[in-house]
Formats: sequence, C-alpha cells, structure tokens
Amino acid sequence: MAGRSVRRVRFRTLRDLEAAARRSVRPDVWGYIAGGAGDERTIRANADAFAQWRLRPDPRAEIGSVDLRTKLLGLEVSAPFFVAPMAYQRTIHPGGERATAAAAASLGLLGIYSTLSSASLEAIARSAGAGPRWFQLYLQPDRARSLELVRRAERAGYAAIVVTIDAPVLGFRDRQALSGFALRRWPAVGNGPGVSSPPRGPVWEGGPYRLERRQASAWADIAAVGRATSLPLVIKGVLTAEAARHAVRAGAKAVLVSNHGGRQLDLASPALEALPAIVDAVGRRTEVYLDGGVRRGSDALVALALGARAVGLGRPVLWALACGGRPGVVRYLRLFGTELANSMLLAGRPSLASIDRSLLAPAPGGPGAAADAAAGRR
Amino acid sequence: MAGRSVRRVRFRTLRDLEAAARRSVRPDVWGYIAGGAGDERTIRANADAFAQWRLRPDPRAEIGSVDLRTKLLGLEVSAPFFVAPMAYQRTIHPGGERATAAAAASLGLLGIYSTLSSASLEAIARSAGAGPRWFQLYLQPDRARSLELVRRAERAGYAAIVVTIDAPVLGFRDRQALSGFALRRWPAVGNGPGVSSPPRGPVWEGGPYRLERRQASAWADIAAVGRATSLPLVIKGVLTAEAARHAVRAGAKAVLVSNHGGRQLDLASPALEALPAIVDAVGRRTEVYLDGGVRRGSDALVALALGARAVGLGRPVLWALACGGRPGVVRYLRLFGTELANSMLLAGRPSLASIDRSLLAPAPGGPGAAADAAAGRR
Amino acid sequence: MAGRSVRRVRFRTLRDLEAAARRSVRPDVWGYIAGGAGDERTIRANADAFAQWRLRPDPRAEIGSVDLRTKLLGLEVSAPFFVAPMAYQRTIHPGGERATAAAAASLGLLGIYSTLSSASLEAIARSAGAGPRWFQLYLQPDRARSLELVRRAERAGYAAIVVTIDAPVLGFRDRQALSGFALRRWPAVGNGPGVSSPPRGPVWEGGPYRLERRQASAWADIAAVGRATSLPLVIKGVLTAEAARHAVRAGAKAVLVSNHGGRQLDLASPALEALPAIVDAVGRRTEVYLDGGVRRGSDALVALALGARAVGLGRPVLWALACGGRPGVVRYLRLFGTELANSMLLAGRPSLASIDRSLLAPAPGGPGAAADAAAGRR
Amino acid sequence: MAGRSVRRVRFRTLRDLEAAARRSVRPDVWGYIAGGAGDERTIRANADAFAQWRLRPDPRAEIGSVDLRTKLLGLEVSAPFFVAPMAYQRTIHPGGERATAAAAASLGLLGIYSTLSSASLEAIARSAGAGPRWFQLYLQPDRARSLELVRRAERAGYAAIVVTIDAPVLGFRDRQALSGFALRRWPAVGNGPGVSSPPRGPVWEGGPYRLERRQASAWADIAAVGRATSLPLVIKGVLTAEAARHAVRAGAKAVLVSNHGGRQLDLASPALEALPAIVDAVGRRTEVYLDGGVRRGSDALVALALGARAVGLGRPVLWALACGGRPGVVRYLRLFGTELANSMLLAGRPSLASIDRSLLAPAPGGPGAAADAAAGRR
Repeated sequence: MAGRSVRRVRFRTLRDLEAAARRSVRPDVWGYIAGGAGDERTIRANADAFAQWRLRPDPRAEIGSVDLRTKLLGLEVSAPFFVAPMAYQRTIHPGGERATAAAAASLGLLGIYSTLSSASLEAIARSAGAGPRWFQLYLQPDRARSLELVRRAERAGYAAIVVTIDAPVLGFRDRQALSGFALRRWPAVGNGPGVSSPPRGPVWEGGPYRLERRQASAWADIAAVGRATSLPLVIKGVLTAEAARHAVRAGAKAVLVSNHGGRQLDLASPALEALPAIVDAVGRRTEVYLDGGVRRGSDALVALALGARAVGLGRPVLWALACGGRPGVVRYLRLFGTELANSMLLAGRPSLASIDRSLLAPAPGGPGAAADAAAGRR
Repeated sequence: MAGRSVRRVRFRTLRDLEAAARRSVRPDVWGYIAGGAGDERTIRANADAFAQWRLRPDPRAEIGSVDLRTKLLGLEVSAPFFVAPMAYQRTIHPGGERATAAAAASLGLLGIYSTLSSASLEAIARSAGAGPRWFQLYLQPDRARSLELVRRAERAGYAAIVVTIDAPVLGFRDRQALSGFALRRWPAVGNGPGVSSPPRGPVWEGGPYRLERRQASAWADIAAVGRATSLPLVIKGVLTAEAARHAVRAGAKAVLVSNHGGRQLDLASPALEALPAIVDAVGRRTEVYLDGGVRRGSDALVALALGARAVGLGRPVLWALACGGRPGVVRYLRLFGTELANSMLLAGRPSLASIDRSLLAPAPGGPGAAADAAAGRR
Repeated sequence: MAGRSVRRVRFRTLRDLEAAARRSVRPDVWGYIAGGAGDERTIRANADAFAQWRLRPDPRAEIGSVDLRTKLLGLEVSAPFFVAPMAYQRTIHPGGERATAAAAASLGLLGIYSTLSSASLEAIARSAGAGPRWFQLYLQPDRARSLELVRRAERAGYAAIVVTIDAPVLGFRDRQALSGFALRRWPAVGNGPGVSSPPRGPVWEGGPYRLERRQASAWADIAAVGRATSLPLVIKGVLTAEAARHAVRAGAKAVLVSNHGGRQLDLASPALEALPAIVDAVGRRTEVYLDGGVRRGSDALVALALGARAVGLGRPVLWALACGGRPGVVRYLRLFGTELANSMLLAGRPSLASIDRSLLAPAPGGPGAAADAAAGRR
Repeated sequence: MAGRSVRRVRFRTLRDLEAAARRSVRPDVWGYIAGGAGDERTIRANADAFAQWRLRPDPRAEIGSVDLRTKLLGLEVSAPFFVAPMAYQRTIHPGGERATAAAAASLGLLGIYSTLSSASLEAIARSAGAGPRWFQLYLQPDRARSLELVRRAERAGYAAIVVTIDAPVLGFRDRQALSGFALRRWPAVGNGPGVSSPPRGPVWEGGPYRLERRQASAWADIAAVGRATSLPLVIKGVLTAEAARHAVRAGAKAVLVSNHGGRQLDLASPALEALPAIVDAVGRRTEVYLDGGVRRGSDALVALALGARAVGLGRPVLWALACGGRPGVVRYLRLFGTELANSMLLAGRPSLASIDRSLLAPAPGGPGAAADAAAGRR
C-alpha cells in the first residue's frame, strides 16, 4: 500500500464519474467496487428498474422555494439521501471512511458507517463532527461483541443502529475474485481485530452441515440489540412485505429496502421493484428507505414517489472517493443534491411532501403497466 | 468563430443525415445538438416510442390525390409538420435561424422561433417573408420584458405566442458540458442583451432556497401575456392530461406535447407516450401538437394517428442546417414531406382527415397491448 | 455488367447463407437485396416476430410418414412454401429468374414471378417446364397493358394471378439508394420495354398533388383483371382483416399477407403479427399465405400453426441465387424443405393437417401473452 | 486423436468457466459443445428464462443447518442436481464419461449416462463405483437391442432408465456443422458398434417419405422397455402438460423437462417456461426434473421453486471436463453445490422442503406478470 499513488482524476458530471473512478484505482480494487454476486443480474436490474417508470412533470404549481430538508427517525438531515454503509473504504482512498464522513457531514447529510469500516467508529465520528450518522451493525458471532459495538456507537453519537440481515454469509462475488482483490493486503478493520465479517459460508462437498452460531440466531440477536439500546433500530436488507412486517414486529422503526447492491444473491429482486409492496405493508407507521441503483437525481425522485423516505448512495460515493477523497465526495454529493432539486423543480414538485405516486406512470411493459391497462387507466 | 470553416457535407437520405451532420460540426457543437438531460433515457425513449406501434395499411381506398395542407390555429400551412423552436442556431451554421426560416417559408411550412435565437425576431421575420411563423417565449424575469417581446413579435408578423413551461430552470445536460460547449464563444442572443435564458437553477449545498421570481410566477406571467396580446397562446412542454387542462384553463388555444427533446428532465415521459391521454383530455376543442423523436415520415404518421394535429421537427433541422445552411434545410424538409406523403399513400390514408387511431395497432408489449388483449381485441 | 465476375461462394447451412451471399455480390447489389424502407424497423420486426412464439413439441404421436405435399388453389405442390415474387433477379446472377424457376420446378415447388422479372414471363415458363407457377402483376398505368400481361401469363401456363396492392408507389429505400444501386446499369425488364414499375411517387414541394391514374384506380383495375381471366386471383400485400375482407369481396381466392419484405412502409405490421386476425377474418373459405422474415424451417412451422397455408421465401432465394445460380437455389430449397420436415417430425406434427394453433404458446411479452394471462391460461 | 494435447486451463469461478473451456478445446469440438439447433434461439431462451423471475429472500427464518440431500425416485443423492446425459465425452477430454462419472460419484451426485457414451456403460459404472447412476436410452431401431441395453444397465447397477423422446431424428446443428466437427475422427461409441444414434432424418427432395421404424414406434418400444425391466422409467424431453400426462400413462415415474439443451428444435419452449404447467399437470404423483440453461446456483433455486425436484447440468459439465478432466468436474460440481447452498441460505430457505413458489415474483414482462397484475397481486 505504501507505494500506491493517489491519482486525482477529475470528474465533471455524474455521467463521467464512473469512468473517472475506474481510471483512479487498481484493477483489483475496481473488482471490489464494481463486482456483485454471480452473473450480476441483480446489479443490472437494480439500475434498469428506474427506467421502467416515467416521470409526469406537473407544471401547474407556482414554485416559490425548494427544500430538500427532512427528518429520518427524527434526525434532521439536509436532504433525503444518505451515504449507504460500505466496508473497507481505505482500499479505495487513504482517506477512507473518514473522508467520506467529513464530506457528508459538511453538507448536513446522513452517513451510515459499516462495522467493517477501515477506520474505527470513533474516528469516523470525529471526522463527522456534528454531522448526522448511523452505525451499521453486522451481528457478531459473539452476541456480547455486538452489544459492545452498539454501546461504542451510542457513546460516539451515532443516532441509530442499522442491522444488516441479508448477509448471513457472503455472496459469490466472482468479478471481485477474478480481479485478484485480497483483503489481507489492505489495512485492518478499524473497529478492532476481534470484529468479524460475514463468513464465506460452508463449502459444499456432498454432505449436509450444521451452521455455526452466526447464521443461526440473527433475530434473537437483533432482539437482544433492541433491548440493550435506546437507539432506534433500522433493518437493512428487506426485499419483501413479509420481511418488512417481521422487522417491524422485531422492533424496527425503519426498514432499508436493499439487496446489498446486488452483491449477495444474484436474481434477488431489484430494490425499486420491491419497494411498493413494502411501503404498502408497513409504510404508514415505519420509515422506508431504499438503496440499489440510484445514480441520478431523477432516480431518487422515482424512489421517493414510490414511497421511499430517503435513498442511499453506494457505489457512486466510492467512485467519488476514488477520484479525490473528501473533496471528491463533497463534489459528488453536491452534484447529486443539485440534480435532485433540479429534478423536483422540473417535475413541479418542489417540496418532499408534494412527491407522491401520481408523479409516475409505468413504462410500457413496466411494473403495473398491465394492471393499469386492465383497469382502463391508460 | 472567425476561423470556423463551413464544411458542406452532403446527405442523401434521412438515414445518412445525422452522421453527415456530425462530420460537419465541431465536437462541442455536436455536444450541444445531440446532448440531453442526465443519462438521456428520455431521448432514447422519445425515439423508441414510435416502434411500439404498428401501421395497419389500408389499401381499400381509391386514391386520387394527396394533400398535406392544413391549418394550425387558423394559419394555413403546407403540411402538418413544423420547425420546432431551437436556440442559438448560429453556433451550428453562420446562417442560423435566418437560414432555417427562409427554408421553412419557401415551402410554406410553419417555423417557430426561439426567444434565444441568435438572430433578432425581426431579422428572422424578414427572412421568413410571408412564411407562417410563431414566436416562442421564454418568460423573462421581468414581466415587462416578456410583454415587450410579445409586442415585437406581433409587429413582426408572428401569428401565435408559444410559451414554454418546462424550463423554469435548465436541465442537467452532461454531454453538452463534457463536450466543452461554451455559449460565450458564440454570437450573442439576437433579441437583445437584456433577454434571459432559463437559469441554471440553484446549486444545492445542504440548505433550502427561495427561488428568484422567474421560477415563481410562470402562470401569472402567462395570464399577463394572454391579456396583453390578441395572438393565440400555445403552451409548450405539456406531458400530462392534468397539465393540458390547466393550460386550456389558462387560455391556451393549443398545447405542444414535448419534453424539450429530452433536454430537461431525464425519465420524463416520451412525448408519444404522453400524447393519447392529452388528446383525450383536451383534443376536442384544443389543437394538440407533438415534438420529440420524430425522425421519419412514418413516425409523423403514427403521431397524427394518435391525434396530433402537427409534429415538430427539432434536431434533424439542426442536422440539416449543419450540413448546408438554407439549402440543406430545404432539402431536408422536402425529403420529410415527401416521405410523409409517401407513407400516407402506402398506408391508404391520402388525406389528413382520413388518418385516425384505426391506422394503428400496438406492438406486443407496447402501450395498450395488454388492455387490447384483456378486451379481446387482438 | 459484362465484366462482372460470377463468384461461387459455397454455403453449407441456412446459417452461413446470408454472409456467403454478401461476399458474392457487389455492394450496390447487396444494397438492393438487403435494404428496406426507412429505418428498416419492419424488416427487423418481420424476423423478430417468430421468436415471440414458442413451439410446444408433441411427442405423443406414433409417426409413420412425413408429407409436405399440399395444394395451393388446387395446384399440387411438393411443399407449403414457395418462391415469392422478386424483381430484377439478373442483377444478382446472370441466370436470374430462369435459374430460380428451374430450381423451384425441379423440386415441384411453386414459384411466383414478378412483372418486373429480368426475363420474359415466357422464358421463365420455359425454364419452369411443368413446374407450378403463378404470375405476379403490378397493375399497369394502362389497363390494357395489365390485361395483355394476364393473357400472356395464361398462355404461358401460369396458374394464378397475384396482384400486388402494397406498391401504389415505391417506398423509401435508403440503404439501396446509399449503396449506389442503379437499375439503368442492368438488363431491361424482360416483359418488354412498355412494362412499368411502381412509380417513385410525387416529390413534395409544399403543395398538394393529384395523382396519376396508376395510383388512383387499383381496385377497378383488379376487378377488370378478374373479369378478363379465368385464373384465380391472389391479392398480395394484405396486412389487416379489413383489407382481407375487401380482397375477398373483390374476387380474391387467396390473400398473401405481406409487407413487401419491409421494403414499402416502415413501421407496417410484421407479417406474422398480422396473420392471425386475417386467418380469423377470411381463412375459412380463402387461402391465406404469408411472406416476410421466414428464415428457418421452424419459422415456417410457426406460420403454418397460425393458419398460413403456405409461406413465401424471398431474400434467402436471392442469397442462394447469388451464391451459385440454379444449383444454389436448389440447394437452398432442399435445405429449407428438409428443415421444415425435420421440424415437423421433432414437433410431433408429421402432416400439414396436424399443424394447428395448439402447437404454439406465446413467449412472455409476446402477442396474446397478456390475453392468455388474463384468461388464466398460463 | 493421438496428437491431441490435453491442456489444463484453470477456472476459478462459474463466471470464467465457459471461456476457460473454450480455450481448452479445438474449434470443432467447441462447435459440438456449444452449438444448438438452427439459429439457437432456444438456447438463448433457455438461459434468459431464469432472469424473468425474481428471488424474494426471506430473512425471517432462524437457520440452523443447510441440507441439500434428497431422493430421486428413491435413490439417495447428495444434492438436487445431476449430470445430464451427454454423448461422446471423449471428444472433449480423454477421460470422457469415466472422468465425469468418477467426479459425480465422489460427491454422491446422480449422473445420467448416454447410450452414446464414448465408454461402455459397464466401464462408466466401474468409474462411478457406488455412486448413483441412471442410464439414458436412445430407442434402437431394433427393439431387441434396446432391451439388451436395458438389461446391461440393470446388471451394471443403473437405478433408472431415462428414455429420450425428443430425438426421433437429429436437429439441425448448424454451428456444429460449420465448425467442421466430424464424429468419425473420434473414438467409437462405447456401448458397441451396433448401437445407433438418432438418425439425421430424411433429406427432402420434393416428395413424401415413409419413415423407418425407428421414428415410428417410440411409444410401443417404451412400453416394451417398461414391461421388460423393474427399473423405474424416466421420460426425457417433455415440454408440455399433455406430453407429461402421456408419459405418466405410459408408465413413467418421472419426467425430465428438457429441450435437449436447445439442440433439437429451434423455437421449442425454454425448459423453465415449460416447467410450471407440467408440475401442475403431473407433479403431485410424478417427479419432475429440468435441464436447460441452469448455470448458477440461483438458477437452480428458481427451478426448484417452480416445482422441479432436481435440475440437470449439461454444457457446464463439459466445460469443466474440457478444463481438466475429473478434477475439473469435481471442482465445478463443488462450486455449483456451494453456490446453491449459499443461495438457499441467502434466500432464507435452508432446506429443500422450504423452497416453494412463494420464493418467486415475476419480473416485469415476465411469465405470469400480466396475470398477477390482472389479479391485483402486484
């Protein structure tokens, strides 16, 4: 790592960001950032899902102001998008999570930081300063260690605990494997040597296997976390109404609709496709967020119109980090916010409260198009 | 600009026109012509929408004549297509809007000319001579200046005022930005130094913002324009039935279904997809036009069959202008009209009055296919 | 032409035929063969339409024999496919239509030969010998000349008159135009200097036009042809149920569902998509054929299952002619027949009588899929 | 063959396996492995069918163990996937079927071995040792020879007879033909010189033909096989509910939904699309398996959720064999099983009994999407 040169590759728009990032990092790191599970069908479906909807601009309103500010579980944030939790950010840029956190905080944006950050949660909190932050928890094999992480997060000013449930084991990330990416070459996990990543899962050799405890007791551990903290729980990795209801019964105040950026189960539902049924099921009393495939301001608008309260930004934050550390992330987040505000203006929906399902029509062949047609709505 | 060489690149059909144009201009100018908002999903959807319909030729008619002449808001025109308003045409060819206007007028075609033309509206009118012309108005920050433009248009023989409502701010045009296109290198706006373009919109930096007047009072200003002129009002940028009804209530005699050639809000409805509901809502008493993605005579036929009274031609006019100034535009418009007449003959619909919805069937998976299927119509 | 070398390019399957043909001819001739109207969307849709259906093989039958023989308007033919009428075949190979006719006749297959053949209909008849043949008639500006062609066809042993109604004017064939293909460089039309091709149609210059007689009186001339001959009439170029009924009322004994190989009206319905409604409308008493996009034996099977009594082969015959004159066409037709018989065997439908709609299911998103779904059939 | 070098090309994931295999074999052998019928539309549809479904992960379960073991017709196997029958494996690697069988057996997986194996069924049985194995039977022209093969299979410990019904003749395999693949260059069929492959089928030359006995008496011969053995019969090549019911009436205990890897009838239904109706028709009392297009663990999960009891692996086994003989196949099968177990864990369905239709949602435009929409289920 010592010899790694930190190139700065400038990007000018959200259009050239990915290519600029690719030029900024080693091929193995690109394999880590870009790769997903299996044939990456869910990654592609995540992105394609937005174009299955049409925005119906409403120029009727007289628009006096635009305001992106909202509250997420009572926490004031400057916009309805946040930095999704992503591990090992120092593989991408020496600034790592601290650069990301400083960038998000400087704009008043929520950042969610991973158990597997390459900086400690306390160091990230210092970088974030007064900025809004949540802590993402991978349940640890040893429940006591999970609770210890929660307590450290409480002390460091994190305002919610985001428990990821879609990673009892790691998915098959072929592109990453083929790129030669190897974690051992990089700095250790910042939260301490005893902190565990989701395991690779057992290798099948013809027989059955009894799982280690870590896959076996997720919900019991979640309940224990809930009892042990006064912070609100967010469950990340929900893709069905049934799972959302289960999460709420287990005490979640919010659910994050996500397929882990397509990195876990290939063919899992695209996040945007999964969203409406989850909003219908639990959205009245529970906040619903989404990550997966959000690339442009208009994508965020589609997700908000389908009932997401906020959207998470994943790979693009890493791209921006790769392009230039903290200033790169600031530039990216500003661009994204500006695009979202611009899209809201152009759509005639200048406030978050004015964004609803009537902003959308399904594209031909898109979700709901047949139902609309059958009901004579088109 | 002085050193710019004006190459003439000959095109022979509508098929080689775009590539010929691309060879005719500098890359930055091509970025201006070709680029659209965001990921340009709406640009692609505009074009793809036509192939979601099938033409059902009717060879039953005994065809004695073909006539493309029609009236648009009472104005006689030689065909149901027109030059859509496009700004800054001198960046593309020294002849600019004057060349375009002379070409359209020479064929008896309506031209709509932009507030942001690189020639004055009076100069354009002189080039158009007796040719039919409408004036496109970008509402100015100062209402008096809007009214002054309207009065100049009246005096210069423009027969309608086309108010654009889809550009309270400019969209994000990444391709244009990345191409290095910079307006300051080009001739000033012809209508005077005080005339304003839609603003870029506020840059988001984490806070809310109160908008300047120009975004805030569109409809009040439109009403003021309506009261101040005897010319009919056309509202451009309508994409929903609700907006169309609003425009009619605000005094519009016609609406132009348009997403600004995909240059404003990425993921906005393709114009052709938006058309039927608008025709259903206001088409009985209000003329409905369409622009966006019309490239071939058969495309125009689809739009007419769905209820458009006329279609606007945008980028192809710029391509033709790039290829050879006024003669290029004349050649293009002739080819387009010949193709439309040819398509009408081949479709067995030799008069505009004979073109209706029965000419069309939805392609499998296209709009309405499911509804047709549910109703047993296929 | 004198210096044109006749290369023989061997093809081995239906898969390498097109590429072999392309290597066999000059680029301008390829432009003539391959090109279609406008953006060639109908050409592509013709071919894509077959894959919107699934073949449902039925292995229940005990199969004792395979027989492709059938009757077309009472004429015995060896298989339910025929050589579609195509003009100017000597541009492709010196053998021209005579080579094609000899090939089809040698296998007992119907050939339909164009008014615009580069050999006279009498010469073609001599090459066909006892082989089944029909004459394709382009209505002539002078009705007497149409009737004279019909009388010559009767005398030369043609068994039906196929009147094309989809070419009152020629379509816009941009690829052909751009390839530099020019008829004047090639041998004259074989049926005499007075025989006319469909005209290019009027060039639009801003005004209306009254058409020459040739576009104006198609159906009156068709009726006159019907009265003047005892041969059965086939109407070619039917794409809707309405047109099919009209053709039957005008005396047609059969209709050929065709969009002229996508060479006339871009966006016209793909032939296969148009077929079912036409079969429903007139198929009980009138024979229905199809051409357009049939490339493989399984394509023919789909068309037969949807109710076509026979399918026409167009461009592939020209490809085979280009590859090697008469032996090339013989080889191609044998391959096609073998593939069809093979497909029938594999589908468990060894006789033409056993092929019906139950052999098919719509692909997801294909025609009728939504209707099937709504009716609970899937 | 003597001079053929056996290169070992290492693959690391299921993602690089196909390309590694392609580098491992001669182009003609690749043509044999990869090619299919006609334009290979069914091959592509086989693979594309999986992405028409979405996996709906259910993280509610507390997962204590993962077990892939199941029984196929009472035979214990270590996982619900098997090696599909494939002929002539020594063309791919000198180890041929014996290497494949040893690999499958070492993992406790079922292997099905073809009548046309390049090793004798007895030799394959010796390589498989105690491993589960079934014998695939191509009905022989001479019924006695079929029965003799069955008796040899009984003696050699094969536990079921899999009769293929989709190959009364060979399909048109153009890619294979064009690659120059010629069986005569390779070792003879291992089961003896008198064993016959499906015939090429008659060449059409204009007339009808009476088939040889081998196509004519499939079901009578199947009945004779059933009477002559106590082993259960599996019918392979079923693509419709009707055929499945027929197979059951003829005594089948299981059906294998298959289109022969797209090698027989181009445009035949993709296996996965055909599956649900077959499960509905016979699945209650008859085991239903599927092969065709299964490439990843998540593909298998989709097929199991639609009612398949097990899935067959075809080309990927050949790819692995090409990459390294027995160790290559072991590596591949381990990877596949690991991926399936991983996918089950991530989907929250850790036992085969817990996998059902509720795990799936149709993709927009996918099979059943319109029906779901019409019923208000989305």
